[in-house]
Amino acid sequence: MSAGWFRRRFLPGGLLSAPGPSRPRASPVPYRRPRFLRGSGSGPGPADASRRPDARPVRSPARGRALPWNAGYAEIINAEKSEFNEDQASCGKLCIRRCEFGAEEDQEWLTLCPEEFLTGHYWALFDGHGGPAAAILAANTLHSCLRRQLEAVVEGMVAAQPPMHLSGHCICPSDPQFVEEKGIRAEDLVIGALESAFQECDEVIGRELEASGQVGGCTALVAVSLQGKLYVANAGDSRAILVRRDEVRPLSSEFTPETERQRIQQLAFVYPELLAGEFTRLEFPRRLKGDDLGQKVLFRDHHMSGWGYKCVEKSDLKYPLIHGQGRQARLLGTLAVSRGLGDHQLRVLDTDIQLKPFLLSVPQVTVLDVDQLELQEEDVVVMATDGLWDVLSNEQVARLVRSFLPGNREDPHRFSELAKMLIHSTQGKDGSPTGEGQVSYDDVSVFVIPLHSHGQGSSGH
Amino acid sequence: MSAGWFRRRFLPGGLLSAPGPSRPRASPVPYRRPRFLRGSGSGPGPADASRRPDARPVRSPARGRALPWNAGYAEIINAEKSEFNEDQASCGKLCIRRCEFGAEEDQEWLTLCPEEFLTGHYWALFDGHGGPAAAILAANTLHSCLRRQLEAVVEGMVAAQPPMHLSGHCICPSDPQFVEEKGIRAEDLVIGALESAFQECDEVIGRELEASGQVGGCTALVAVSLQGKLYVANAGDSRAILVRRDEVRPLSSEFTPETERQRIQQLAFVYPELLAGEFTRLEFPRRLKGDDLGQKVLFRDHHMSGWGYKCVEKSDLKYPLIHGQGRQARLLGTLAVSRGLGDHQLRVLDTDIQLKPFLLSVPQVTVLDVDQLELQEEDVVVMATDGLWDVLSNEQVARLVRSFLPGNREDPHRFSELAKMLIHSTQGKDGSPTGEGQVSYDDVSVFVIPLHSHGQGSSGH
Repeated sequence: MSAGWFRRRFLPGGLLSAPGPSRPRASPVPYRRPRFLRGSGSGPGPADASRRPDARPVRSPARGRALPWNAGYAEIINAEKSEFNEDQASCGKLCIRRCEFGAEEDQEWLTLCPEEFLTGHYWALFDGHGGPAAAILAANTLHSCLRRQLEAVVEGMVAAQPPMHLSGHCICPSDPQFVEEKGIRAEDLVIGALESAFQECDEVIGRELEASGQVGGCTALVAVSLQGKLYVANAGDSRAILVRRDEVRPLSSEFTPETERQRIQQLAFVYPELLAGEFTRLEFPRRLKGDDLGQKVLFRDHHMSGWGYKCVEKSDLKYPLIHGQGRQARLLGTLAVSRGLGDHQLRVLDTDIQLKPFLLSVPQVTVLDVDQLELQEEDVVVMATDGLWDVLSNEQVARLVRSFLPGNREDPHRFSELAKMLIHSTQGKDGSPTGEGQVSYDDVSVFVIPLHSHGQGSSGH
Repeated sequence: MSAGWFRRRFLPGGLLSAPGPSRPRASPVPYRRPRFLRGSGSGPGPADASRRPDARPVRSPARGRALPWNAGYAEIINAEKSEFNEDQASCGKLCIRRCEFGAEEDQEWLTLCPEEFLTGHYWALFDGHGGPAAAILAANTLHSCLRRQLEAVVEGMVAAQPPMHLSGHCICPSDPQFVEEKGIRAEDLVIGALESAFQECDEVIGRELEASGQVGGCTALVAVSLQGKLYVANAGDSRAILVRRDEVRPLSSEFTPETERQRIQQLAFVYPELLAGEFTRLEFPRRLKGDDLGQKVLFRDHHMSGWGYKCVEKSDLKYPLIHGQGRQARLLGTLAVSRGLGDHQLRVLDTDIQLKPFLLSVPQVTVLDVDQLELQEEDVVVMATDGLWDVLSNEQVARLVRSFLPGNREDPHRFSELAKMLIHSTQGKDGSPTGEGQVSYDDVSVFVIPLHSHGQGSSGH
């Protein structure tokens, strides 16, 4: 990404704001459900749309189809919020080829050694908006981007310490010391590869959507197991937690207009033209109106964690850059998440104001050192889209996990049963284990990844 | 601060980059030591410069002069690093007047009620660089800025919940509910006032330095007690910790080119002209050289927490925006801190490249709910400039505190004796309590604030 990219892409007069030559239009991205649901009984598409709110099917993989690490999965479509289920999921084995390095000029002749593998697994959830296309593209693409990015650095990952030069040539004798001082470890290369993969995938989605004339975006939550560690990369408002007998540990944080307020206001401060005079970047407890003019009201700007009072001017009456509270918070009145993939064409209704400059495709990555945990049989990672977390807290999910698993040790499908049970708990049925009857009308998708069996050959892939 | 301010102030062609009309020059800021050291024996100024490295005096307040809460203080000048001690300190009582509000149009006639006070205390440390002037100005000014900012919002602070409108008029019946939903509490107004006070003080320093033809900047670490809470605001690399019998809790974090790498690289990404083609914003384990050209080397850009490899191009050989490790890390090869006050005129040596756009004057504020702690007699907050923390860890300081205080309960000056002892521990004397003999050649200033006596009339001010 070149330094002038941002301006060329987003600011008035930028080279790229002129429409390019029209290209032949590709066919639209076909709707589908995750591949691993094949054979699970229900059809892929608009059939879903005929659901009654109280009779939406909870779907999970066919009994013969084991997911990596014997993970469980279940999903439910939203209650007529949209025609399609805009969540998507994928999982699989990650086979990273190791390249033999020659001199730099020989790199076109690199010998790929397909026998040498570094093997991992990944599980991914995508929560789409503005149509299902971006989430489908992400589910089709992100793992390939990740494999490519990991293959580009795998030589550094398998070294005792990542070398300053990927070739292993040591140009300056104290290079290993410089790397040591910066504290750069193999896991930093995986984090970097995840960050780059998300960005690459975002670019692919942008091109594909433009080519097919479609729109939309999605969040992305990915768990990757590699070399004894579990990496959780998150861009959006899905969530992953670790549930153990005595511990509930968040493995991701949510990125919404509220949690990223200061970053978003800061961008509007340095590039006010992104708001086209239609929005105010300031935060107020509510939208201001004429009666507030001249009054001193509570406000917050980009540099503030605290609150102050300001005298209301006319420009403060504009619609706020970030508006609403909690689940209702919206960026530019349009979007509930501030990170994710896609949305390249998204504009505020009836304006030319773009959302994309305020969105990040870069995930936050947390690392769980699985090899260092004294694992017990019921230790799991629960990943789910926001539809689950809107009605169940981390503690409630942990209680459901702990109450379900011990009594079902003999059931080889217990992790999918648990995923289904978690989804049933969001549907407010009388028998709902929470007994609180809260209902999620959103799409909900859940992976339950058991940690105990990892690498013990229980994977069907 | 208007939205176009940043560009006008820092970018080529900005209105303010043209020199203004020359004004009559004010006299330089006179050098001084903190007021509360008067009568402590040693002269204020260049006399300090005649010190031998092994015989620098440790100074603390005269025995008859009690600081707020009977806090202890001690300082030592650096070992001939600079002519003056560039640290400064101040402390005192904070008297916040409450204003009676009339209608908006009557505000010029506000009745100040000097009998009505909200009273607090503050302690502040400033670590100067590039000369002593900025730290002296900050020590003279910041408490006045803070008092003014607090007085502007005190009506909101003393209410059960800060009102949407400072006047208390309720324009929309559900205003209290909006404030409630945002979770805005009285302490958020104090945080906002601290943030604004630092910015206001920074502007004052900029004007004063320009008027007197002086240069320089300083870090700022401030503790403020108000309404049963202790607010710690930090911009720079000083540090405050809470030491209790069973707990050591950091009350601040350091802001350096290393800890703020992503913010600084991000700014250079959106405004590459700030680097004038002389620096690269990318981070590498060491500065690259010709031999690295064409190699794939470890690097990190603004959006990355992890590391990747990139093929070295010629532009990567430029001097890095952030260079060096730990205490040696420098911003633009010049500055070791990334937040603070002053430095308005600071440029990279022999260039026109400004440091100021990369610096923040806004502090990070943490709140300690003192009223909620079950205080014990030896619970203290230790605030010190980086000269102390360069050679003593939080745990070492805590051990020294715990070993000193219990045996000295009868000594009314024990907190200043402790501050002196902490400074002696940085001088590597044989009898140094750490026994590790690490030496700080920097200026060192220390406050020890006992929490137990707070509000119990032990303050002499």
